[in-house]
Amino acid sequence: MISKAKISEIKKLAQKKFREESGLFIVEGTKSVTDLLLSQLVVEEVFATSHWLAAHPLPQSIRCAEVSPGELERMSCLTTPQEVLATVRIPHFDPNTIDDRDAVIALDGIRDPGNLGTIIRTADWFGFKQVVCSPDCVEFTNPKTIQATMGSFCRMRVFSTDLPDFLKEKDCSILGTFMNGEPIETVKFNRNDILVIGNESNGISRAVEALVSRRIHIPSFETSPTHAESLNASIAAAVVMYQYRLRIQ
Amino acid sequence: MISKAKISEIKKLAQKKFREESGLFIVEGTKSVTDLLLSQLVVEEVFATSHWLAAHPLPQSIRCAEVSPGELERMSCLTTPQEVLATVRIPHFDPNTIDDRDAVIALDGIRDPGNLGTIIRTADWFGFKQVVCSPDCVEFTNPKTIQATMGSFCRMRVFSTDLPDFLKEKDCSILGTFMNGEPIETVKFNRNDILVIGNESNGISRAVEALVSRRIHIPSFETSPTHAESLNASIAAAVVMYQYRLRIQ
Repeated sequence: MISKAKISEIKKLAQKKFREESGLFIVEGTKSVTDLLLSQLVVEEVFATSHWLAAHPLPQSIRCAEVSPGELERMSCLTTPQEVLATVRIPHFDPNTIDDRDAVIALDGIRDPGNLGTIIRTADWFGFKQVVCSPDCVEFTNPKTIQATMGSFCRMRVFSTDLPDFLKEKDCSILGTFMNGEPIETVKFNRNDILVIGNESNGISRAVEALVSRRIHIPSFETSPTHAESLNASIAAAVVMYQYRLRIQ
Repeated sequence: MISKAKISEIKKLAQKKFREESGLFIVEGTKSVTDLLLSQLVVEEVFATSHWLAAHPLPQSIRCAEVSPGELERMSCLTTPQEVLATVRIPHFDPNTIDDRDAVIALDGIRDPGNLGTIIRTADWFGFKQVVCSPDCVEFTNPKTIQATMGSFCRMRVFSTDLPDFLKEKDCSILGTFMNGEPIETVKFNRNDILVIGNESNGISRAVEALVSRRIHIPSFETSPTHAESLNASIAAAVVMYQYRLRIQ
């Protein structure tokens, strides 16, 4: 049993404003919550059906409330109801703790929550640990982003900082995708490269472009004049990450 | 000016049932409608604001109604309102007309409309012309799919047919992605390969798996035991399509 006020409080975490006020975000579904419980993130509370709790015993240290499927549905941000939902403290990673010896995925204005989540999931698959978001990126605590990461939000350090300021201080290679860059299949990558992915509509911003040291390009291999003008941002990011892993020196 | 009944009729095309009844689907936004008008698809009617029409003169052969932004918003399937919307006849491509000398992307139960749209957009970028969908795929006329293609729906022949029946009759290579296949960066592709992409949760179905002649795999290059379990279906499709173009014999 859970109060109406509590349900409404949790439901509000779908909105950025209330996440900022409370310092909490929502994680839903068995896969994501299971990954969450194995992570360093601080779980505030778990809400689950009796059926779910019977199958997934929780550590005693976790605060937990049994709720009905109907109550869960009313808290949920998803169209397909799940059997478990957790509220979690938003982690704040200090950009000064970024490991300069390792690669960084830098996101310059990724606005679509699904794209951000898919990029985090793909980065996790290909063994990246660090994603730096410009302040105009959608927050990674957006419920649609969390959902799209399929649990990978637990394993990625996601920083938010001014991108030009961050890049200015680096002496490693900064690679960005452009329509007129070097074909990516000939690029040699270094372990500590910074790979910049631009906004869905406008690509990489002027201020960041000025700091890019290598312009790279994903060829279409297509000669027809009427083909797709561009790739989806998460697709471009995936091809870049895959080639990085394949062609690292 | 447009009647309330007409608005409601168009709004209903967001639902599969009404698309099937009417044989129509919706296309929204300047980019998609511009690409549409250059394509072979049959436009039923265009609804646009006076502002849009002044900037985009239409051929006389196109039936067109001037509407207010408010009216457009009430017809729209999108959260961000656009200035133009078109209704279009659903094309039906006969699977017997598939060109066996050219590559085919075969989708085995892609259920997410955004994934299907992104796969069509990526296929268009990499110069593929033919996508074959199993009957349990989301329809490519779903408004979210059309939106995610960013106009590429106009340039792709999207077939719907029973996948095992279709594959049984082919004597070309049928490649499918699995957790235990050959690493994709060593695979040599042939021009007329069929590239199978499986369902978001369950991968390639048993019946289709039995017909796959080469099992391929996208390596994660990751040694940590706790990393992402899988890639998003549209990401996997993109890496396969990119490698096909790169490594075609």
